Amino acid sequence: MADKVLIYSRFPKTMMARFAERFELLDTGGKPAREVFSADELGGIRAMLTAGGTPLGAEAMDLFPKLGAIVCYGTGYDGIDLKAAAARNIAVGHSPGANAASVADIAMTLMLATTRRILVADQYVRSGDWAASKPSPMMRPQAGMPGRRIGVYGMGEIGRKIAARCAAFESKIGYFSRTKYDLPYQYFPTLEALADWCSVLMIAVRAGDETQHVVNADILGRLGADGYVVNISRGSVIDQQALVAALTDKTIAGAGLDVFEKEPHAPDALTALPNVVFAPHLGGHTLESHVAMQNCVLANLGAFFEGKRLPYGVKSA
Amino acid sequence: MADKVLIYSRFPKTMMARFAERFELLDTGGKPAREVFSADELGGIRAMLTAGGTPLGAEAMDLFPKLGAIVCYGTGYDGIDLKAAAARNIAVGHSPGANAASVADIAMTLMLATTRRILVADQYVRSGDWAASKPSPMMRPQAGMPGRRIGVYGMGEIGRKIAARCAAFESKIGYFSRTKYDLPYQYFPTLEALADWCSVLMIAVRAGDETQHVVNADILGRLGADGYVVNISRGSVIDQQALVAALTDKTIAGAGLDVFEKEPHAPDALTALPNVVFAPHLGGHTLESHVAMQNCVLANLGAFFEGKRLPYGVKSA
Repeated sequence: MADKVLIYSRFPKTMMARFAERFELLDTGGKPAREVFSADELGGIRAMLTAGGTPLGAEAMDLFPKLGAIVCYGTGYDGIDLKAAAARNIAVGHSPGANAASVADIAMTLMLATTRRILVADQYVRSGDWAASKPSPMMRPQAGMPGRRIGVYGMGEIGRKIAARCAAFESKIGYFSRTKYDLPYQYFPTLEALADWCSVLMIAVRAGDETQHVVNADILGRLGADGYVVNISRGSVIDQQALVAALTDKTIAGAGLDVFEKEPHAPDALTALPNVVFAPHLGGHTLESHVAMQNCVLANLGAFFEGKRLPYGVKSA
Repeated sequence: MADKVLIYSRFPKTMMARFAERFELLDTGGKPAREVFSADELGGIRAMLTAGGTPLGAEAMDLFPKLGAIVCYGTGYDGIDLKAAAARNIAVGHSPGANAASVADIAMTLMLATTRRILVADQYVRSGDWAASKPSPMMRPQAGMPGRRIGVYGMGEIGRKIAARCAAFESKIGYFSRTKYDLPYQYFPTLEALADWCSVLMIAVRAGDETQHVVNADILGRLGADGYVVNISRGSVIDQQALVAALTDKTIAGAGLDVFEKEPHAPDALTALPNVVFAPHLGGHTLESHVAMQNCVLANLGAFFEGKRLPYGVKSA
């Protein structure tokens, strides 16, 4: 009989197809597990697959007395209470780096779309306003990429790929992260110093309790009226209310957002703004990165059921 | 007295400010010069400033018997009849490379916006459809950049900058141009071979009679159903009718267009399509590239009035 895996978050069926070939999947469809499956069924669950952003704390873990592995689909694991997992001897796995290129690409897409105002540009052509030579702020030239100061917050795999891409655009790259690396980019010892220096802040930091709302009104103010913020990490890193205020009163020029505080909800005050480009958390959402993430999931689940260490494990807190 | 310069195309006043400090400008506002100025005034004109795409043939040149210099604002000079200019001993100048980075950036912006479907993504969030979990083709993963085959048509300054940027995205780069260069990209001897190989065709060729409609139904067909075309060169390079057909019947997946056959007009059949991202020919339109283009214009006009060779001259045909 195939090993059983509980699907804890809501995932499209197509993304689960490769797992279904190898395991018996108990799919909650994102609903509370107890509403979908009997206590008996849940009691036997030894492994679950979840999205890293889905909250999963001690109480939830205790619903599954035999739980030994929480495998996250994707690189993030910010929803998982790592201490609670460790205390229960539950291994936590993820897909490190599998979607880094894809996420870095969406960061670049959002930065370019925002700074070159592609939504406004597209609408200017589609509406016929260009043909009618209607005046538009669109036609005021903006700063380009060469020489532009790009600040990368977080220098993990995604941050590095963003930096490498920006460098090809002839931009100046600075970064802040806890560690200073041997990289050809200017290091800033604080996020404040980075924000003072750069005009585009690219948020690529791994989210967690210590990064909650660190990009606040003060940091946004330091970016200045020509400043942009792009977030492809987690919505929790930005104080979303402060961001709405900064975009509304033109404290900063614009933003590109793939992530939000309460997904899939983006507040009306935010979505009404013309100087933002939105994406529905699709950064890691390419064919290649799904294959790579699925490879990590299969390797983690396979190892767990064979009684081995997870090959893509998260270090416990 | 300041030397006189006729402004032949329609330019925003702000873009002419630096020229007005040094020359007496006779601004047609893009209207026929004879409607705006007397034959007497036009008879004395020795130099004019024009947009490279504005048609300027033998007949138009003959309205200015003393004309000695046609200076194009920007890199293009496809509107100028070079043979007619040479026959009349009129020097033609432009701004080579001044906007290359800015144009390469808009090519990347259009490619990423199109392949990552950023218009659809943005609308999916803004409309509330994401929050309502409405099904959307948006949520089907697409091919990302790593490993993607990018074909660059034309390897001048802009083509090289596009290739360098794409390389940072971990893509494979191929190119076709009349000349094979010592570059780390795969050379294809024909546009057909490049189109067979690549999934994104980036048009960066210098436009002219020999490139008229070379990207036709056949070339588009070779890109295939997963193929994209991005044009930042001139609208004349693509057979626009064939493009509309290829986009409508899904012969190709999408397009990113900064240029059109008859600017500023984009036909309704084109602008109605959801799988295209449009920009109103703003590729070279950044603060830095305007400064660089203006530097070339000032150097060309200054040299001409001092009786010297244009430092940024176009080789005559």
